[in-house]
Amino acid sequence: MFGRTYFCGEVTEAAIGEKVVLKGWVQRRRDLGGLIFIDLRDRTGIIQIVFSPEANKEALAIAEKVRNEYVLDIQGKVVARQEGTVNDNLKTGKVEIIVDEITILNESKTPPFTIEDKTEVAEDVRLKYRYLDLRRPVMFETFKMRHQVTKVMRDFLDAEGFLDIETPILTKSTPEGARDYLVPSRVHEGEFYALPQSPQIFKQLLMVSGVERYYQIARCFRDEDLRADRQPEFTQLDIETSFMSQEDIMGMMEQMMEKIMKEVKGIEISLPIARMPYDEAMSRYGSDKPDTRFDMELVNLSEIVKDSGFKVFAQAVETGGQVKAINVKQGSDKYSRKDIDALTEFVKVYGAKGLAWLKAEEDGLKGPIAKFISEEEQKGLESALAIESGDLLLFVADKTNVVADALGALRLKLAKELGLIDETKFNFLWVTDWPLFEFDEGEGRFYAAHHPFTMPQRADLELLDTNPKQVKAQAYDIVLNGYELGGGSLRIFEKDVQEKMFEKLGFTKEEAYEQFGFLLDAFEYGTPPHGGIALGLDRLIMLLSGRTNLRDTIAFPKTASASCLLTNAPSEVSETQLNDLHLALNVSK
Amino acid sequence: MFGRTYFCGEVTEAAIGEKVVLKGWVQRRRDLGGLIFIDLRDRTGIIQIVFSPEANKEALAIAEKVRNEYVLDIQGKVVARQEGTVNDNLKTGKVEIIVDEITILNESKTPPFTIEDKTEVAEDVRLKYRYLDLRRPVMFETFKMRHQVTKVMRDFLDAEGFLDIETPILTKSTPEGARDYLVPSRVHEGEFYALPQSPQIFKQLLMVSGVERYYQIARCFRDEDLRADRQPEFTQLDIETSFMSQEDIMGMMEQMMEKIMKEVKGIEISLPIARMPYDEAMSRYGSDKPDTRFDMELVNLSEIVKDSGFKVFAQAVETGGQVKAINVKQGSDKYSRKDIDALTEFVKVYGAKGLAWLKAEEDGLKGPIAKFISEEEQKGLESALAIESGDLLLFVADKTNVVADALGALRLKLAKELGLIDETKFNFLWVTDWPLFEFDEGEGRFYAAHHPFTMPQRADLELLDTNPKQVKAQAYDIVLNGYELGGGSLRIFEKDVQEKMFEKLGFTKEEAYEQFGFLLDAFEYGTPPHGGIALGLDRLIMLLSGRTNLRDTIAFPKTASASCLLTNAPSEVSETQLNDLHLALNVSK
Repeated sequence: MFGRTYFCGEVTEAAIGEKVVLKGWVQRRRDLGGLIFIDLRDRTGIIQIVFSPEANKEALAIAEKVRNEYVLDIQGKVVARQEGTVNDNLKTGKVEIIVDEITILNESKTPPFTIEDKTEVAEDVRLKYRYLDLRRPVMFETFKMRHQVTKVMRDFLDAEGFLDIETPILTKSTPEGARDYLVPSRVHEGEFYALPQSPQIFKQLLMVSGVERYYQIARCFRDEDLRADRQPEFTQLDIETSFMSQEDIMGMMEQMMEKIMKEVKGIEISLPIARMPYDEAMSRYGSDKPDTRFDMELVNLSEIVKDSGFKVFAQAVETGGQVKAINVKQGSDKYSRKDIDALTEFVKVYGAKGLAWLKAEEDGLKGPIAKFISEEEQKGLESALAIESGDLLLFVADKTNVVADALGALRLKLAKELGLIDETKFNFLWVTDWPLFEFDEGEGRFYAAHHPFTMPQRADLELLDTNPKQVKAQAYDIVLNGYELGGGSLRIFEKDVQEKMFEKLGFTKEEAYEQFGFLLDAFEYGTPPHGGIALGLDRLIMLLSGRTNLRDTIAFPKTASASCLLTNAPSEVSETQLNDLHLALNVSK
Repeated sequence: MFGRTYFCGEVTEAAIGEKVVLKGWVQRRRDLGGLIFIDLRDRTGIIQIVFSPEANKEALAIAEKVRNEYVLDIQGKVVARQEGTVNDNLKTGKVEIIVDEITILNESKTPPFTIEDKTEVAEDVRLKYRYLDLRRPVMFETFKMRHQVTKVMRDFLDAEGFLDIETPILTKSTPEGARDYLVPSRVHEGEFYALPQSPQIFKQLLMVSGVERYYQIARCFRDEDLRADRQPEFTQLDIETSFMSQEDIMGMMEQMMEKIMKEVKGIEISLPIARMPYDEAMSRYGSDKPDTRFDMELVNLSEIVKDSGFKVFAQAVETGGQVKAINVKQGSDKYSRKDIDALTEFVKVYGAKGLAWLKAEEDGLKGPIAKFISEEEQKGLESALAIESGDLLLFVADKTNVVADALGALRLKLAKELGLIDETKFNFLWVTDWPLFEFDEGEGRFYAAHHPFTMPQRADLELLDTNPKQVKAQAYDIVLNGYELGGGSLRIFEKDVQEKMFEKLGFTKEEAYEQFGFLLDAFEYGTPPHGGIALGLDRLIMLLSGRTNLRDTIAFPKTASASCLLTNAPSEVSETQLNDLHLALNVSK
């Protein structure tokens, strides 16, 4: 215990009568009838300590000087609290310490906000005083959980024969993918390192090296414009294996997740985790990371309404699009015409031209488009959407991807508004059979849907030349409660397939070798079949700890403009530093 | 086992009769009397597999196409090797596999060097083909050991209540210390992040946060000109604790080292680890990280020779310097006059003006300076140096620090040459009571000997103003076999002491606040007493694995010019990338 006999939060009735030494921070001080009561806090919790003239007058005098967040070292005796003063909300609430010695180890100014879980303060103040923010028990518990989760991961992977191997942070810039953070070289004038967007190539090279099972809890970097759930540096559990099948890898990850859920959350999840092909996820949920904690699935009505008198429906189908709807069960009364107008604006953000709606009443479907719906169509809808009186039906008729995006987003929005989501559930899901490519209409070129090293499904290899859009990948994402936790794939391990892949992505052979020559070279020396996965650790912790943003899972995070409000990074540097790096500023001011 | 039934190196007699599936690389192929023998290798070892026309003609035909480093998937039956063909050097040497199915998973060109522990190839070739270099068993074993060591560390620290907390890689440049690697910001024009030289300030802020016990296996960065044992990025076990004394921290680290030595090396070390004040280490070994696996200590002869007829000795003492010697036991015959001339050149590198010597013969001390040595001095030397006939005595007379540096280095050189070092020994040592400051004669200013956050010894606080050179720090280095494994200290946790420290280091108050204001601010909000340590992981692994350079402990290391020969990092980047970062090159060509 190193100088203390207990942590504050762990003194219970079992210790009554003991002489104890405690160290911690003053949560609050109360003066009452000549006595001073202090709630003393350390990372384990709070205990009440009491100063009285009978116990020690000098200690009482010192206690008078004490303010919130002072650091104390105290000695005293554990006694039972008097009846009526017991606090059942605290583990230590049945006892208190009668103090006979106190040392003030350090003082504190009044903090800019109170050190409590529920603190009413703007996030930028919390970030500037991060060292105080992290004193709040809810923050400490989040980082404790983060530690526990990585411990379970490491223990599991160690037992499975994985080696934790570090890969470089100073590495080579590869323009494919997101924007790199660059690091100018001092020794090599005009040259730069890049911070890794992921250890992807290094972990594949480790498979070429015969390591067979690699993992790393790896820092990754992307210089992108930040959204609420992005950080310039983030952490992933990075895994690569040789000679394992997609099923082998998914099965192993399931066992790891089962162990994490059990040991950290005390929750048993049932294996195997459900699997859903990408096409099905898009079709049923309008999302490649469906939240399956609630239903309200997208229903394809194209067949039913393809000849509809409502021309918007008929035309959508005729031009190769779709008509789909969700049934908001008993939502009819909850959404006024004005509310639905707002929902229409919402789906327009996703490219939809509009939102059609019907309300189911005892005597049939009502709403502006009801008059266009034939009796036969109505029967079709009633059956397809399992309509009951009181339901609200929301339709989007558009191109397939617009329908999916718009209704997928609407589904989530409505579920949150209506409280349809059971927040105690942890619904894991594998999304499989991803397309290998995404086609960028604007640029008229293909991009790798995962990354350029993903193995096409063997049966689709011949489609690479004839119909790339149809090629599926040996790729799998793991989804939790509608968030992508991570993604993996089997990798290309044959040089000719990898060259073909670069070609399809628009690389000339020279460009491919310029950037990835060392990998293509490596593929000539006995590269084993391999594959892996990467799990976003920050997001996993966010979901497991019930936090609502990634910043709360990172000890010293950055803001949306990639600043650290605590240290004021980034900052200006000296002329000497720039000269050493052979750089000049080229700023617009 | 995921598709295999055994790893190659683990098939023993217990498996005789079993049908097995193995995967691995071809170590070598031999054709012998119509049969083909292949040594199949995976990360666990090698097994002999045999192809015969009786077993399977098709498999035999495929085996004929196989070359070194091809990747195979084979099925076969385990049989006992015939008498006379048993290989006792292999764990699998009593058995072989009669193959009845083979799949070539991938082919290989002839590698540029053989995949064996003892490979005769220049290091730059190994680094260019690092993925092949890492296939050599000795390299795999090094990374396996690295994994094991970090596992033991993590398990130990977890059990002691430490939390693994990640600190930022993109942080703020602080000119004090080594040169920072900088990362230009795209969002904040003209501003830069810096890669951390260590997480020092963040771990102290975590103590302000009440975390109490933090650790991280942390990547650190220094843009320095590289020596043989430096890398631009390196890894340290970084630890910080609150409320613990120097003894508490040292004791805990000893227990961790004991566990590592036992679990990884099977060696019991006896605790406590020896402690030696800095002054004593410098005096007895001429080093702040003495190799205590052998004696040959430096002996101070200043008192004995202060009035010597050999004026070099007398003058050195008179001008405030020292005369010290080492006794090379029975070294008299081993070093000729010419050899000693070479040693003289060696010590000159350390600033010594010369090297005096004497050889002890049956009838007294011989050598060029013998005639200046009085009988009384001779007796003094004989007693102080425990001289026996055959010994070689080597003297340096100079300023104290020059004597230490020159004789300290000479001691190490001679011990290596004479084979005095027991390479099986692991001698740990704590060096304590470091000076707080180093004085730079050239710049006429003080530098922090450890770093500016090191706590002075309480008794020396008043010397800060009057005699800074005399101030000792509450600092401790752990040394293994003459290498600094790591260093730690208690930290300043009071704002006024920290301000005073910055003042002594030549910071104006403005400069101190400009750079470290957030830490000084934090010290105002209830900062607990704290301290920690950092251990160099790369070096520890180098010493435990018996490797001779740090590069062999890092999967993808950089050369002395900070290049990666595998990926060719650093490299040029595009004009677009530079423009995005508001930079222009300022190169000398």
